[in-house]
Amino acid sequence: MGVVQLQDNLKQPASIQTLVDLVSQDMAKVNDLILSKAGSNVELIPEISRHLIDSGGKRLRPMLTLAFAKMFDYQGDGHIILAASVEFMHTATLLHDDVVDESDMRRGKLAARKLWGNQASVLVGDYLLGQAFKMMVDVGSLEALRILSEASAVIAEGEVLQLGASQNTSTNEAQYMQIIEAKTAALFAAASEVSPEVSGQSDAVRAAARKFGMDLGLAFQLVDDALDYGGSAKDLGKDVGDDFHEGKITLPIIYALARGTDEDRAFWKRTLEDGQIEDGDLDHAISLLRSTGALDDTIQRARDFGASAIEALASLPDGPCKDALRESVEFCIQRVT
Amino acid sequence: MGVVQLQDNLKQPASIQTLVDLVSQDMAKVNDLILSKAGSNVELIPEISRHLIDSGGKRLRPMLTLAFAKMFDYQGDGHIILAASVEFMHTATLLHDDVVDESDMRRGKLAARKLWGNQASVLVGDYLLGQAFKMMVDVGSLEALRILSEASAVIAEGEVLQLGASQNTSTNEAQYMQIIEAKTAALFAAASEVSPEVSGQSDAVRAAARKFGMDLGLAFQLVDDALDYGGSAKDLGKDVGDDFHEGKITLPIIYALARGTDEDRAFWKRTLEDGQIEDGDLDHAISLLRSTGALDDTIQRARDFGASAIEALASLPDGPCKDALRESVEFCIQRVT
Repeated sequence: MGVVQLQDNLKQPASIQTLVDLVSQDMAKVNDLILSKAGSNVELIPEISRHLIDSGGKRLRPMLTLAFAKMFDYQGDGHIILAASVEFMHTATLLHDDVVDESDMRRGKLAARKLWGNQASVLVGDYLLGQAFKMMVDVGSLEALRILSEASAVIAEGEVLQLGASQNTSTNEAQYMQIIEAKTAALFAAASEVSPEVSGQSDAVRAAARKFGMDLGLAFQLVDDALDYGGSAKDLGKDVGDDFHEGKITLPIIYALARGTDEDRAFWKRTLEDGQIEDGDLDHAISLLRSTGALDDTIQRARDFGASAIEALASLPDGPCKDALRESVEFCIQRVT
Repeated sequence: MGVVQLQDNLKQPASIQTLVDLVSQDMAKVNDLILSKAGSNVELIPEISRHLIDSGGKRLRPMLTLAFAKMFDYQGDGHIILAASVEFMHTATLLHDDVVDESDMRRGKLAARKLWGNQASVLVGDYLLGQAFKMMVDVGSLEALRILSEASAVIAEGEVLQLGASQNTSTNEAQYMQIIEAKTAALFAAASEVSPEVSGQSDAVRAAARKFGMDLGLAFQLVDDALDYGGSAKDLGKDVGDDFHEGKITLPIIYALARGTDEDRAFWKRTLEDGQIEDGDLDHAISLLRSTGALDDTIQRARDFGASAIEALASLPDGPCKDALRESVEFCIQRVT
């Protein structure tokens, strides 16, 4: 784990705005491309795509692609296309995720599957994935295609793993880490790695960018999982307790299970495994997660991965891109502290 | 439409075996590759993949890739990888289709979604699609990747279109043709086109192979749709009347609707649009499809596309590959006559 200390005590809180500003010109092009490529003569496709695209995601993954392209002074428009492809892959995953999780809400709006049905969500996800690969071909880099197609298979593997761990209170920390590395961090890693690749950078530089993305992705997911028991609905765009009601076994739960009394374990088994949730159970869950230090320790794991992500930047060129990427890590962690 | 007459009156019925024998050595390699690439440390993935892969599909699409590679004496193993990718794309589509159609059976076995659930079917489909693209990258042909990623997006578009046409008795012939071209024929076309592409053939040759695949795919789907009201369950590996019970508006139905009395149209509306199906309705549907000539005319459309497919072979090199491909068209048509 990293030895660099995160500057949690900065006078100014870290903001994602530095990264947003850095890539804003390129991001405008990415957004145009996304809108044009989400188009189709088949009416339902742009309708559903736009519902998701307009629903205020942070576009964190394509921002990584754009920031690393800028760091290496990439010339051309490959980074725009790759960034849009990355966002399409992510959007397709969200559509399929909501079907798999039977989610009602996504980013504070009704999930697409509630508006158009599971069937359309599956198929429009497939369409966006197909479009993503078509766009990648346009960039003409087989190596970038290899990185992103590998991520695509790994993400699906992670989702299948998560399905097996769902409502299974014997899931351990190693299994959880394997799941979030695959379902979340792999795309952060790929989004970061493709830019040094198309910019002709060395293997070592590619590996550093990849490691940054991977560790940031892990930190991001750990924070998300902690926020599900501690953040406010407003911050998350979804209600606290979603994971609880879906029986998701996340790291806070794994820690709480290991540290709890027999009575506590019976509580977790009833609520998460058997899905028998009564009024007041979520509050009780949160109080157990706090009293056992499960939330604090999850957040500490996120901090460690954040520090490791920043450490990965050390060998890369100094400048505004590196600064913005570092601040984006701090922002991710500060969401929860 | 083609002017070549199909030899329906051959003394020997056409057999797919000629094509099977022609590519059998290569197909053994494709099967090995499929089994190895459907593997994953995530248990559920090989389990579901093998259920589908072992369930006796004809592997028609990868056979097209292999036969065209042989026609152009392709050297290397790219055709093996592309053929396996094509079969993975097809398998992923089947998994998602069964979820979308809420099908209980597939090729005479319980559908994967009945055994492992919709969730796993969606995710394993995604995994196979990711693996397909990873494999295509190994071939190293950006143009083959373009052909297959384009097909991937088009197939999903076709499925979304079909969803909109489902239970909609105002669907017309042009809309139906657009749906089957996208959801079925596009992959036949791509499977055929990639081999001349990686064999370095001219654009004209590529176009001829593509046209062959497209027209064969259209004929194949038309035959399938006619068989759903006239074939035996044994031939199809699924029960007659599946489309009827799902409210699918296929060409036989479109013809019967246009030619029926007001009473007939009320029957179709009640059964297909409102889904109110009673005992004896399927028999009545089949008798209407026969008496109006709707089945015969659908089969004639299939014959026309079959003739057009054979015509597309005219400019390609004579030999055993061309003969086997021609016979496979005749076999497709003869399934229904």
